[in-house]
Amino acid sequence: MTIYFAGSIRGGREDAKLYGELIDFIKRYGNVLTEHIGDQSLTEENGEGLHSRYIYERDITWLHSADVLIAEVSTPSLGVGFEIAKATQWEKKILCLYNPRKGKTLSSMIAGCPLITNVEYITVEEAKNAVDHFIKDLQSSLK
Amino acid sequence: MTIYFAGSIRGGREDAKLYGELIDFIKRYGNVLTEHIGDQSLTEENGEGLHSRYIYERDITWLHSADVLIAEVSTPSLGVGFEIAKATQWEKKILCLYNPRKGKTLSSMIAGCPLITNVEYITVEEAKNAVDHFIKDLQSSLK
Repeated sequence: MTIYFAGSIRGGREDAKLYGELIDFIKRYGNVLTEHIGDQSLTEENGEGLHSRYIYERDITWLHSADVLIAEVSTPSLGVGFEIAKATQWEKKILCLYNPRKGKTLSSMIAGCPLITNVEYITVEEAKNAVDHFIKDLQSSLK
Repeated sequence: MTIYFAGSIRGGREDAKLYGELIDFIKRYGNVLTEHIGDQSLTEENGEGLHSRYIYERDITWLHSADVLIAEVSTPSLGVGFEIAKATQWEKKILCLYNPRKGKTLSSMIAGCPLITNVEYITVEEAKNAVDHFIKDLQSSLK
């Protein structure tokens, strides 16, 4: 199984450590294309330090080739929103993990989209359980 | 001409007044479907106070019916990113207006996307000029 993991880079890196922990967990289920999202040396100011067009083409190609999109959506991000919509266009299986925070609620374009499996979590264990259920449901639907 | 204007709601409302000013300007070129984006009484905590599924279906239907998407992308937003990607899927004409701020750079999924006209601006006048050029170019290409 090929998995595209999406998390905020330019929108803010406060959850970079969490992304890394989730990616390490998700790797047990397949090939994660976007391991760099969890790299804590990657900052919102500099991103990956590559040209935008190069990153766009690379990420769109990766997403198109993936079976599954798992997105952490607690930090608002244009790129993550863009990737989720492209995944709906390409009929990927989509899991969005959302940690509700004081004064923030999830965008209706994500929370209200019938093509997305939306799960709210508080602890990292809950997020991992959600991933586990999502992947196992997928695997049993493919049998 | 039917225009869908996109700006952050749940991602943050610090630019609500600017959105209102841009929408008032854009109305001279056609019908703006999303005038509420500029409503300063609309907060990130409560959004529109409607069900997510309702907002999703309404906004997706509006966007699908629009000729043009104009997005203000200075505040990271999942919903705006989602809408821009759907607009690429439906081959809409897309203008993204970006005010570069200290420590923030635009997502590569927007800045690097060849289907988007990206314009950086500082003053509101510059943003209005960008809208004017974009619409006039469109109008002359339709002639």
